[in-house]
Amino acid sequence: MPVGTAATVKAMLPASVRQTGADIVLGNTYHLMLRPGAELICRLGGLHKFMGWDGPILTDSGGFQVMSLSKLRKITEEGVRFRSHIDGNEEFLSPERAMEIQRLLGSDIQMVLDECPAYPAAEAEIEKSLSLSMRWASRSKAAFDTQPGRACFGIVQGGVYPALRRRSVQALCEIDFDGYALGGLAVGEDQRAMFDVLDATVPHLPNDRPHYLMGVGKPDDIAGAVLRGIDMFDCVLPTRSGRNGQAFTRYGTLNLRNARHAQDASPLDEKCRCPACRQFSRAYLHHVVKSGEIIASMLLTWHNLTYFQDLMADLREAIAAGRLAETVARIAAAYPREVEKSPEMLD
Amino acid sequence: MPVGTAATVKAMLPASVRQTGADIVLGNTYHLMLRPGAELICRLGGLHKFMGWDGPILTDSGGFQVMSLSKLRKITEEGVRFRSHIDGNEEFLSPERAMEIQRLLGSDIQMVLDECPAYPAAEAEIEKSLSLSMRWASRSKAAFDTQPGRACFGIVQGGVYPALRRRSVQALCEIDFDGYALGGLAVGEDQRAMFDVLDATVPHLPNDRPHYLMGVGKPDDIAGAVLRGIDMFDCVLPTRSGRNGQAFTRYGTLNLRNARHAQDASPLDEKCRCPACRQFSRAYLHHVVKSGEIIASMLLTWHNLTYFQDLMADLREAIAAGRLAETVARIAAAYPREVEKSPEMLD
Repeated sequence: MPVGTAATVKAMLPASVRQTGADIVLGNTYHLMLRPGAELICRLGGLHKFMGWDGPILTDSGGFQVMSLSKLRKITEEGVRFRSHIDGNEEFLSPERAMEIQRLLGSDIQMVLDECPAYPAAEAEIEKSLSLSMRWASRSKAAFDTQPGRACFGIVQGGVYPALRRRSVQALCEIDFDGYALGGLAVGEDQRAMFDVLDATVPHLPNDRPHYLMGVGKPDDIAGAVLRGIDMFDCVLPTRSGRNGQAFTRYGTLNLRNARHAQDASPLDEKCRCPACRQFSRAYLHHVVKSGEIIASMLLTWHNLTYFQDLMADLREAIAAGRLAETVARIAAAYPREVEKSPEMLD
Repeated sequence: MPVGTAATVKAMLPASVRQTGADIVLGNTYHLMLRPGAELICRLGGLHKFMGWDGPILTDSGGFQVMSLSKLRKITEEGVRFRSHIDGNEEFLSPERAMEIQRLLGSDIQMVLDECPAYPAAEAEIEKSLSLSMRWASRSKAAFDTQPGRACFGIVQGGVYPALRRRSVQALCEIDFDGYALGGLAVGEDQRAMFDVLDATVPHLPNDRPHYLMGVGKPDDIAGAVLRGIDMFDCVLPTRSGRNGQAFTRYGTLNLRNARHAQDASPLDEKCRCPACRQFSRAYLHHVVKSGEIIASMLLTWHNLTYFQDLMADLREAIAAGRLAETVARIAAAYPREVEKSPEMLD
């Protein structure tokens, strides 16, 4: 899912997002509640109409951003009080308010409010946080306005501790959700630790519900997670990297800022179907990145979103054809973990 | 002509520029010679291919930007020596080099190098500058590589002094150009003074060649200039204003940053055919402008370019229908000169 934080997938028009192959985007409750406000978006006809996106929208609950972006936050049983990072105003988010905001936005897939502890954290701390998150999950589900075509997802927490992850899965399954997300990953732990958590958790999730790994990730993270039973992902990486002059390709990442692209008449990837690859040379992309031109963000975001959509399509095809492990290995080979050894990253 | 300074019409893809109705864009010799360099663009197949624009391109000579952007410039009979505003490197531009750069870029309409004196300037100073510009015009034409489908335009100088303007026209006509531009206007003089120069100059230009007013302008400037016999314009106003949250409409300018748009579900202009007007509300545009989102620049640039293309189409239609004065008056009424009296501008 491309991330459309503030009611826009940055540097993309909705029709262009669609052309990359995306059929669902993510919106951020935290950002939208602060600006322009959920009640205003509701009065204007909902988030789909507001941002011009006619496909499904998944909204997070705001929990993660409250923990990572806001200031002076205070967490109680009731919810979390915090100050907006935009204007310093005091704000409050509870499980009930998080669901109300998502209902006002008209979100198709709504996420429960959870607490997102910092990484690393001791097991006792994670356990305490987890208990609160599970009570919040129960209140979120109770506050969810069930409607045909609307889904509510629970979020498995428990840090890197398998027993806590299993306890979280059990608690959520008792509440019964339309889908199950894994939170608290891709927060600083290495890939091995993340995969270990998936190995210890995903087999316990209901098989007939979607499994969503939040905030992930790099191509090889995604491939490895799909191998472990994950169905859905969101990440700012394709859009943010695009704005920073970085392109994802079948051969690894390219930093378009690097001087070696300055005279290169070849496209980023001759097999890619995006406008950056079809209409422009690496030399042009280098030029507009170096010049700070908006078109650089537009083209590289479009390219990266296309790359990630095609990556997911490849993985789906590989599953259908029974050769997933092979495809995952190919992707992982293009994205070696130790990036300092990759010549592309030495740009 | 939309302005594509550094091989991009800022915040627009080439196909989108085309959709606004534009069939020719402008490129800046000064910017392109400094980055990425004319020889490099030539090796990569020329500016059209480099920037993905398959319509005609007009390039300026670099003279205006050298005078307004570069540092430590020294003008001699031979040309102008200056330091790049990007890296401080010493550069040199002569009439011959300006034409060579435009040939390397593959420009369809090439402009002579002229000196652009500051405004205001005394008549004696303008006269001296004009003489140099006319000698440079002669050298530029001699250096122009005549090819089928390629044009070379002269630039009339002479400040606000009718006698000097006429002398400039005469000098250029003796050299014989494919088109005639008016330079040294829209540099700080008021609209009346600009129109007076047009009234004193345009009637002396050959009627069978295009008349191009450089760097203009606001909708009422354009309308008044068309009434006085101008055929072509370029200006950064639609693109730059778009990036600053300002929209041009049939009713005058709108500042989307203004809070009064925050809850407005109506489009910028219900009759406009651009994506900003067809797919989004003023409330959305306000939100993305306030949030500093790239899509704000993309949508408002697209809208403004569409507005100016439609303005030109209206004027062409009015000429054909014999009701130009009426159309010009309507445009001028929407753009009163004393903007401080317009409620739209008090935003």
